[in-house]
Amino acid sequence: MLTFSIASRESGSRARAGRIETRHGAFETPAFMPVGTKAAVKTLQPAQLRDAGTQILLCNAYHLALRPGEALVAKMGGLHRFMGWSGPILTDSGGYQVFSLAKLRKVTDDGVEFQSHLDGATVSLTPERALEIQRTLDADIVMPLDEPAPFPSTAAQAEAAVKRTAAWLDRSVKSRQEEALFGIVQGGTFPDLRRRSADDVNRHDLPGVAIGGLSLGEPAAQTIEMAAVVCEATPEMKPRYAMGIGTPADIVHCVLAGVDLFDCILPTRLGRNGWAFTSEGMLKIRNAVFKEDERPIDPACACAACRGFSRSYLRHCFSVDEILGLSMLSLHNVTYYQNLMKRIRVAIGSGTLAKLAKTEAERCPPLNSR
Amino acid sequence: MLTFSIASRESGSRARAGRIETRHGAFETPAFMPVGTKAAVKTLQPAQLRDAGTQILLCNAYHLALRPGEALVAKMGGLHRFMGWSGPILTDSGGYQVFSLAKLRKVTDDGVEFQSHLDGATVSLTPERALEIQRTLDADIVMPLDEPAPFPSTAAQAEAAVKRTAAWLDRSVKSRQEEALFGIVQGGTFPDLRRRSADDVNRHDLPGVAIGGLSLGEPAAQTIEMAAVVCEATPEMKPRYAMGIGTPADIVHCVLAGVDLFDCILPTRLGRNGWAFTSEGMLKIRNAVFKEDERPIDPACACAACRGFSRSYLRHCFSVDEILGLSMLSLHNVTYYQNLMKRIRVAIGSGTLAKLAKTEAERCPPLNSR
Repeated sequence: MLTFSIASRESGSRARAGRIETRHGAFETPAFMPVGTKAAVKTLQPAQLRDAGTQILLCNAYHLALRPGEALVAKMGGLHRFMGWSGPILTDSGGYQVFSLAKLRKVTDDGVEFQSHLDGATVSLTPERALEIQRTLDADIVMPLDEPAPFPSTAAQAEAAVKRTAAWLDRSVKSRQEEALFGIVQGGTFPDLRRRSADDVNRHDLPGVAIGGLSLGEPAAQTIEMAAVVCEATPEMKPRYAMGIGTPADIVHCVLAGVDLFDCILPTRLGRNGWAFTSEGMLKIRNAVFKEDERPIDPACACAACRGFSRSYLRHCFSVDEILGLSMLSLHNVTYYQNLMKRIRVAIGSGTLAKLAKTEAERCPPLNSR
Repeated sequence: MLTFSIASRESGSRARAGRIETRHGAFETPAFMPVGTKAAVKTLQPAQLRDAGTQILLCNAYHLALRPGEALVAKMGGLHRFMGWSGPILTDSGGYQVFSLAKLRKVTDDGVEFQSHLDGATVSLTPERALEIQRTLDADIVMPLDEPAPFPSTAAQAEAAVKRTAAWLDRSVKSRQEEALFGIVQGGTFPDLRRRSADDVNRHDLPGVAIGGLSLGEPAAQTIEMAAVVCEATPEMKPRYAMGIGTPADIVHCVLAGVDLFDCILPTRLGRNGWAFTSEGMLKIRNAVFKEDERPIDPACACAACRGFSRSYLRHCFSVDEILGLSMLSLHNVTYYQNLMKRIRVAIGSGTLAKLAKTEAERCPPLNSR
């Protein structure tokens, strides 16, 4: 259902470049998944994502189960056909969304009961139900229901979440059919709990390991540290996925720590807010300094936004609320991220990955410091 | 500065197919201009407009003078380069917008003084200033400042607007340099006033004649009647432009009456509101009936929206507020309009244009009756 092969390694680190084969084709690792929460990467067409270098997408089972419902997606031929993306798709179970979006949660050993963030209807999510949704959607890689501990958490809170995550994973493994199910490692910012949670996952010999509960507000250094702890504690031949991470520098540092797969809303959300990632650093397109700037967003970029428009024009689009500005900055940022992944894959084995991390950290400082 | 040639005619009507050459290339007539009010056709890239069959765009001098200012556009290399559209562009003077959008208008023989609809600043527009803005923008076809009478108007109101429009055209002609300036015919729904206004325009031997002050709420039959009166009253070798018109059926009827050029916000505005023009009639994508409809918006259409997505998926995009839905329906509708213009151009000379008008009227009934 999923095969992972490693083609090259970066010495002095855990970084590796390789390839994952799924039922809907292969993708190169390290890989970045743009986020298509509701079966659409905001403002962008699948063809634009492909042109940007995207090889795999992420969608969210929680959102899709609420609207339009997984049964409808199945009736329309499955998620790939529904959204017009023929390549691999990973779905998140929605655990994180239930804990961050939904109101009036009742968490028991059985599962989570909550009110839909849409209409207040009572919905329950169990490990079995989360898998059923993702099976019905026909995702290529699926995630079990887990319980992320908030940041900050006490050790006791984080431990309780680790225990419940382990118990739910056991049930997920029992109920799965043919799905390529990853285990999720929790444990907050506690290295011992991270190792214990990794052991809980390792017991099952699943096709991959996800690192959850990060990028919740902890300092970037701690994010990287926890990712490294988990990578160290999991078998080398398992692909590792750092959920919800991160800035370009976070990604390179996590690759150095041994991570293979990433997703993050940053390129699209920041794009819609008028921020662009460039080879010269972050750029806020609304700034007055760009009013008469004839250059493209990033002179080093060949995306349709950079080929087609000046900073001056895109600033104008944001000033007058033209949606074209949102889609063009989103497209550019996804292109920046996918080019970053290419640069990472090329760097692995050449001894230049640490330098690349430094470059990216200079271009885009940790976002919570701004 | 502008040449118009007629290649074929439809007997039993005034319809003609031809070609207009501008400084930025030629376009075939009858032609439809998507509306890029603020130098962007809402949600769409120039490449998408071109793929849809668009050969000429309309922008609005009033909006662009307010933001970003015509001087900035000129500094960025002119409107074509600024917005990334290399083909012909027609600009409207903004007369209509001043009379419909702005507050506290003071109309004198000199011009219009009003408060900007953006920040309340006092702005004045004179025939000379309107031309200066459009010259600075570097538009291929420019419009004089005119005074459209509202609908309904008394004959006295409409006559006053005709007089002022004529006086302003005289000043526009005096102040123009190399611009391809059209004259605008007003006169409300009064055939005599229309003829008188056409005479006012004919006196100047301008490169084209625009028919203004229509589609303001009058019944479609009256729109067509007034267009016909103006076409009859103007020289055959002048291209005729029906401003702000209309539905597909309105367009075919106006072509039969002798009109060569059109602009309308309908395809993009209705698209953003979830309406699609199709070979099977109008379709409201939010309707529950499309929930499980695997077919494209229009099985007869080859646009990227129809090639890529089902009605079910696009309905979902509208349900969950994904911007992709807005851009895909806009793209489809512009494609429908441009395919309609192709069908019109092919029909002219074949004796089938009247039948085409009937087909379009059946597909899309007059919009004010809905």
